[in-house]
Amino acid sequence: MKILIITASLRKASLNAQLGQLAANFLKEMNVEVDLQSLRNFDTISYNGDIEKDKGIPAEIDLLKTKFQQNDAFIIVSPEYNGSIPGALKNVIDWASRIKPIPYAGKWAYLMSASPSLSGGNQALWALRVPFEKFGTFVHPNMFSLASAHEAFNEDGSLKNKQLEERLKTQLKQFIEVIK
Amino acid sequence: MKILIITASLRKASLNAQLGQLAANFLKEMNVEVDLQSLRNFDTISYNGDIEKDKGIPAEIDLLKTKFQQNDAFIIVSPEYNGSIPGALKNVIDWASRIKPIPYAGKWAYLMSASPSLSGGNQALWALRVPFEKFGTFVHPNMFSLASAHEAFNEDGSLKNKQLEERLKTQLKQFIEVIK
Amino acid sequence: MKILIITASLRKASLNAQLGQLAANFLKEMNVEVDLQSLRNFDTISYNGDIEKDKGIPAEIDLLKTKFQQNDAFIIVSPEYNGSIPGALKNVIDWASRIKPIPYAGKWAYLMSASPSLSGGNQALWALRVPFEKFGTFVHPNMFSLASAHEAFNEDGSLKNKQLEERLKTQLKQFIEVIK
Amino acid sequence: MKILIITASLRKASLNAQLGQLAANFLKEMNVEVDLQSLRNFDTISYNGDIEKDKGIPAEIDLLKTKFQQNDAFIIVSPEYNGSIPGALKNVIDWASRIKPIPYAGKWAYLMSASPSLSGGNQALWALRVPFEKFGTFVHPNMFSLASAHEAFNEDGSLKNKQLEERLKTQLKQFIEVIK
Repeated sequence: MKILIITASLRKASLNAQLGQLAANFLKEMNVEVDLQSLRNFDTISYNGDIEKDKGIPAEIDLLKTKFQQNDAFIIVSPEYNGSIPGALKNVIDWASRIKPIPYAGKWAYLMSASPSLSGGNQALWALRVPFEKFGTFVHPNMFSLASAHEAFNEDGSLKNKQLEERLKTQLKQFIEVIK
Repeated sequence: MKILIITASLRKASLNAQLGQLAANFLKEMNVEVDLQSLRNFDTISYNGDIEKDKGIPAEIDLLKTKFQQNDAFIIVSPEYNGSIPGALKNVIDWASRIKPIPYAGKWAYLMSASPSLSGGNQALWALRVPFEKFGTFVHPNMFSLASAHEAFNEDGSLKNKQLEERLKTQLKQFIEVIK
Repeated sequence: MKILIITASLRKASLNAQLGQLAANFLKEMNVEVDLQSLRNFDTISYNGDIEKDKGIPAEIDLLKTKFQQNDAFIIVSPEYNGSIPGALKNVIDWASRIKPIPYAGKWAYLMSASPSLSGGNQALWALRVPFEKFGTFVHPNMFSLASAHEAFNEDGSLKNKQLEERLKTQLKQFIEVIK
Repeated sequence: MKILIITASLRKASLNAQLGQLAANFLKEMNVEVDLQSLRNFDTISYNGDIEKDKGIPAEIDLLKTKFQQNDAFIIVSPEYNGSIPGALKNVIDWASRIKPIPYAGKWAYLMSASPSLSGGNQALWALRVPFEKFGTFVHPNMFSLASAHEAFNEDGSLKNKQLEERLKTQLKQFIEVIK
């Protein structure tokens, strides 16, 4: 089994990238092949119907399509911006939704978030379900939101809160089970 | 009174731009000064905390800040992409929310949408309330969603459906009343 | 395979009950056993923690629990009230969520709506996903919203719009496939 | 100025009732007249179009209508049930929306929540905005969500966290300002 993980912050020292790396490690321990990608690789110009008509789909989105096709399922690890989906991530989804068949339709997805806030990034994850479920993605009901993420990690990348870490492992196992 | 209208599609022959123009005409008839802007003027690179640290706020967002400051209230006319806010529009909001004080905090807003679909762009407008209400914008409860927008306009830019046009006028009047 | 259908309007001549009956007919043609229930059978006093402590779970909710247990999956056919879930339906979910293990956790669900409005009951269905997905229900990404429902049915209970009827059949087939 | 406060839990020892009482105290200090009501006074049978036709609006909802009419604005203090609006509260709104003119249309509202959870009741409050904004209520962008509410209060009913208490006072002041 191969799973694509997209960490959706463009910052280099991103908490979401750290959380994505941790999920990747756990999945590898479960004998899952992981394709860990930063949104930086897919980030592109804003969707514009005129550009689509003149030049077609941007190369970054073509790459994303290939990634969706090469993997059995995907995970998105996204920050919350203003109670909703980061614009850069939504823009990538807007472009990808123009490819027919829609490359994430019928795929399974699992959503995660890391946020320095006390309440985590849950509101963004609920908003992020919509564009995927709208076009046939099976978004797993489990979601994982890491609150106070700036102080959540040990130096080796594990979580200080072992109970939370176990929950993440359990949810990843449940995600793999349902894909099979 | 001065009202900023942002039409949030980047296409040149945009239905949302047409609807924004119609709202601008009606507002002028009500003796309101209108600053009609396309999102093209504010569209910018994807929000990235590293870029913010190195180079600060992009010039396009500084312009947007000035526009918010120069006007008493604002209207957004936005398409619906995948049941939610267009990425390009959300990205502009993400950047603008980094300016303190947040330039749209405490302002009044009215949301509109034009969509070729039968159900209009209402789902996007509900999603669009969130990033604004989260930071103190008074988003008017009235919203205007134009369904089947590709066949809704007369050649002179008015709406074929006069009842709908009256509703738009009434809502714009109510919006002006509440700002006063 | 056995599927529970709950039609969530309490009116006797309910459009949602009609739509639920139609879905039941189609499922039977697909050799699925159907348990068609009105929300009237589960409707109960408002959730109140004091009553729960004194008298436990109401008999109507115990019946609902049994129904969830006896069936492999469920369908809810719900009207939209005020852009959201009918209070009576939400109250039944509130009570059922107090039973451990939660009787709909891990089950598959498919959501439908009939509405006399032009835009259908989609906003309610999106809201209805939340309490189920929050507790582990696999809510199918497909949803079926029947707009202008008061003029949508033939006398024999079929839909006048045959294309729409085909879409319903296809979605029901896809729902059955994913449960298997 | 007169403000109606509805605390939307039916339990007697409700954290939401405690929070409503605290808000009432602060408002009185600001020379606002307060009408503090429990949802128990409006709780009624589930909305049913047949009952509406036969017997009209229930007495509890008539009382609620009067309360809306007698007060200049209203506050709802609601628990979060399953990520959304409590069914009992939504049912009361469903009934009230059948009265024309809708008794809360054009009124100002401020939403609060007390929850024993770490993340508070914010998701419910966002859901609660919808039925009100849908029918013309001006729901203030500020919302107040008290997390870990079971350990948040001193014996005299004040909040242990004085910073949080100040924020509540500030928000109440801002609410009063905007009504004027």
